[in-house]
This record gives sequence, C-alpha cells and structure tokens, in this order.
Amino acid sequence: MEYVEKLLNGDKRTCARLISMVENNEEEAKNIIKDIYRYTGKAHIVGITGPPGGGKSTMTDKLAKELRKRGKTVGIIAIDPTSPFTGGAILGDRIRMQDLATDPGVFIRSMGTRGHLGGLSKATQNALKILDVYGVDYIIIETVGVGQSEIDIVKTADTVVMVMVPGLGDDIQAIKAGVMEIGDIFAINKSDLDGAARTQAELKAMLDMSPQKSRRPPIVPVVSSLNKGIDTLLDEIINHMEYLKSSGELKTRRENNVQMEIIKLMEAEIMKMVLQKSQKEHILEKTIKEVAERKTDPFTASESILNLL
Amino acid sequence: MEYVEKLLNGDKRTCARLISMVENNEEEAKNIIKDIYRYTGKAHIVGITGPPGGGKSTMTDKLAKELRKRGKTVGIIAIDPTSPFTGGAILGDRIRMQDLATDPGVFIRSMGTRGHLGGLSKATQNALKILDVYGVDYIIIETVGVGQSEIDIVKTADTVVMVMVPGLGDDIQAIKAGVMEIGDIFAINKSDLDGAARTQAELKAMLDMSPQKSRRPPIVPVVSSLNKGIDTLLDEIINHMEYLKSSGELKTRRENNVQMEIIKLMEAEIMKMVLQKSQKEHILEKTIKEVAERKTDPFTASESILNLL
Repeated sequence: MEYVEKLLNGDKRTCARLISMVENNEEEAKNIIKDIYRYTGKAHIVGITGPPGGGKSTMTDKLAKELRKRGKTVGIIAIDPTSPFTGGAILGDRIRMQDLATDPGVFIRSMGTRGHLGGLSKATQNALKILDVYGVDYIIIETVGVGQSEIDIVKTADTVVMVMVPGLGDDIQAIKAGVMEIGDIFAINKSDLDGAARTQAELKAMLDMSPQKSRRPPIVPVVSSLNKGIDTLLDEIINHMEYLKSSGELKTRRENNVQMEIIKLMEAEIMKMVLQKSQKEHILEKTIKEVAERKTDPFTASESILNLL
Repeated sequence: MEYVEKLLNGDKRTCARLISMVENNEEEAKNIIKDIYRYTGKAHIVGITGPPGGGKSTMTDKLAKELRKRGKTVGIIAIDPTSPFTGGAILGDRIRMQDLATDPGVFIRSMGTRGHLGGLSKATQNALKILDVYGVDYIIIETVGVGQSEIDIVKTADTVVMVMVPGLGDDIQAIKAGVMEIGDIFAINKSDLDGAARTQAELKAMLDMSPQKSRRPPIVPVVSSLNKGIDTLLDEIINHMEYLKSSGELKTRRENNVQMEIIKLMEAEIMKMVLQKSQKEHILEKTIKEVAERKTDPFTASESILNLL
C-alpha cells in the first residue's frame, strides 16, 4: 500500500487524490478507510457553523492564519451548498481563502452538498480521516448550519464553534434553534455592529435557561474582518480540548461518533440488500401498486415484504 | 372502529385527537393508519416552502381564505422550528392565523420539529392521511425550507409552491439552491418591494438554464399582506392539479411517495431489529470499543456485526 506510506509522509497530492476517490467511489472509499483507519485520531477537529450571513468563511480564514502563526498545520473542509441548476458550488467568497491555498501548511477542500455517493455526511467523514492521517494538527469543518446533514457533520467535530451575529431576525433565530445546543463555544462575529451587546445578553440568558452542563460554553466577541478576538477564540478552542481530555469526554464523544458511523454503515448495507432482493423479485414494485390502489397500507406492506425476505 | 366512522363524518375533535396520537405513539400510529388508509387520496396536498423571511405564514393564511371564498375546506399543517431551550415552537406569527381557527371549514395544526417518535417526516405523513380522511378538499403544508426533513416533507405534496422574496442575500440564495428544483410554482412574495423585477428576471434566467421539463413552472408575483395575486396563485395551483391528472404524473408522484414511505418503514423496522439484537448480546458495545481503539475500522466492524446477526 504505497499510498498509505505517501499519505503518512504528508504528500499533498496523494491526500487530494484520496479525498476525490472517497467522494466518488463507495467501494474504493471503503478500501482506503480500511487501510488508513489505524493511523487516525490525532487531529483536533473544529466545526464552525451558524446561520447564513454570519461570516463563517472569514472566521475560518483568520483562524487558520492564527494557527499557522502558532506553528500549527491546518486542514479546512468547507461544505458548500450546491446550485441545483449549475451543479457547482455557488459561494464565491471561498475565493477569499486563496492566499491560504499557497501555504504548504494548509490544505483546503470544498465539498458540495450533492453528488456524493452515500451522502455528504459519509464523504466528509472519510475526507476527515484522510486529512487526519495526512498529518494536520487541526481540521476545520465549515458549514452553513441549516440542514440536517450539515448538523450531522458538525456534530462529529471535537469542538463546535457556533457563530452568531447581531441583528438577525426571528426567522434566522429559528434556524439557529435546531443547532444551538451543539455549540461548545459561541462566537459573536461582527461584534462591532450595533446590537452586539444585546445579542450577547440574549445568548447569556439562553445559556442560563438551558440545562446545566459540567462546562458552560464561553461566549467570544469577534470581528473576523479586523482579526479581532481570533486569538481569544483559538485559546478557547485549545481550552476546550484540554477540558475534553481531562474530563474523559473526548473518549465518550469519539465513541459516540464511532457508534453513529457503524450504525449508518449497517443501515446502508442492509437497505442495499433488501432493495436488491425485493426489486429482483418485483416484490417492491407489486406492493407499491397495491398500496397506491389502497388495497393495502404502507405499514402492512412493509411488514409483508420483510416477512417474505 | 368507531373512530374511523367519526373521522369520515368530519368530526373535528376526533381528527385532532388522532393527530396527537400519531405524533406521540408509534404503535398506535401504525394501527390508526392501517384502519384509515383505504379512505385516503382525495385531498389536494399543497406544500408551501422557501427561505426564512419570505412571508410564508401570511401567504398560507390568505390562500386558505381564498379557498374558503371558493367554498373549499382546508387543512393546514405548519411545521415550526422548535427551540432547543424551551422545547416549544417559537414562531409567534402563527397567531395571525387565529381568525381562521374559528372557521369550521378550516383545520389548523402546528407541528414542532422535535420530539416525534420516528421523526417529523413520518408524523407529518400520518397527520396528512388523517386530515385527508377527515375530508378537507385541500391540505396546505407550510414549512421553512431549510432542513432535509423539511424538504422530504414538502416533496410529498402534489403541488409545491416555492416562495421567494426580492433582495435576499447570497447566503439565502444558497439555502434556496437545495430546494429550488422541487418547485411546481414560484411565488414572488412582497413583489411590491424594490428588486422584485430583478428577482423575477433572475428566476426566469435560472428556469431557462435548468433542464427542460414537460411543464415549465409559472412565476406568480404576490403581495400576501395586501391579498394581491393570491387568486392567481390559487388558479395556478388548480391548473397544476389538472396537469398532474391529465399527464398521468399524479399517479407517478403518488407511487413514488408510496415507495419512499415503504422503504423508510422497512429501514426503521430492520434497524430496530438489528440494534435490539446487537445490543442484547453486547456486540455493538464491544465493536465500538475496538474501533475507538483502532483495532479495527468502521467498515470491517459493520460487516462483521452483520455477519454475526
């Protein structure tokens, strides 16, 4: 397995090629992960999420630069919503990160939200593992925190930074709601804007109301565009990893992730088997017709297909 | 089955009680749907979705009133994002619909995005069936089009109205991207605002670029708050149903929904069995530890659990 050797030696082209392979070919992905899995678990994985318009890209950019200043290497996976019409990623502001792309200590990868065999979540998990073995100290996953698959992705990070901004409306609050509780650190970006103090107060009140955890998430005011507060944010990210290690929560979290991953793999495998079998014998097709004609109902249909198999 | 009789006779309290039951008890839900399924399939199901801030609630409200004016009965299911801290639905603007709630020809139900056994998508599908048998002519499902489960829900509608507004930024465009292609009708709400013409032009351009379908989705400018364009919107919704029927697409769509539903039910059933079995014998627990300690990898682990069962 020459490529494992190359990846362990930090070969950037091998890293990029392997990520493309896990994105595009499920069978190859399986073999690659089997080969490299034993070398994973070293990188500190940081998820950056929050409502649209929060300036997450700029924050990621500045955080990566701060890490580089401290001598650390960084991998960045940016999850881009994909246009249904062009098939390509549509967020132009990735371009801002271009100066990072020429730094040999930084590896950047954009992943669109469609066209991944087996789902974005799986493709991202596999890419994380490759980056980990490639040898970066930190991996930042940046994602618009709006979809369930995006939430699933960011949940697998060791440290989740929830980015908020002053003055977003109620509807945006609603989006935040679903992902709020997974924040380990709250960063209030654009904190030089009017309303920042109010956002901070509201956030504090919400944390006061929420069930007490052994560790209360810190709130960090940031102005990413001016590079203000980024050093404090990084300090808090490092503190959080210390906490995870000393409390034993790192082990629990990573075991939970492993559990989720195994269950999802089993689910996919079983469904593949069931669908193949029921399609081959036209069972599914026949049953769908019967349900559509109201001769039976979906529950009875599902039970009888499973009994047949 | 007295309750089936009552539901078929349009008893509102029975309808409300049955929906609560399918929300809270998976086993009861199964029995109810088995009993009533044969009477479903009559209502025209309209999904209303789009980015946050688009005024979907007001549009739903006005559309329901227009339907009542034309002598039709209406069921409304509003999917509310739920606050993680309070557990309750947080969108206050449902209150606007209160004058509809006293109309005997209207049935309104809010469903929060958490706490549904078996998932929101399943709970909503079951609620739809109950409303259908209860006997409304139209069912409107209104949802913030941001999460995968919301998209799954609205996809099961016969007619999907995608609501857009002038002047939302690029990030919001990104949200729209993922759900754009499921629109059967595009309603530009707040079309009296600056930029409405531009939004309409952009939308037209996007539709021009998209793969040709047998029917091009119409674009309807609306000002919901002033009740402008709502009649045209309803005409287009009715036209769309005509199209679905005459082209045979109604049958195909509903069969696809049945297929998705059966597959999801089978998936849930199988996973329940697998998890019960592997937990009972501590197989899962042991395997997770081995993977976490890098003695094996998730793919090999999933394969070996499945082989054991």
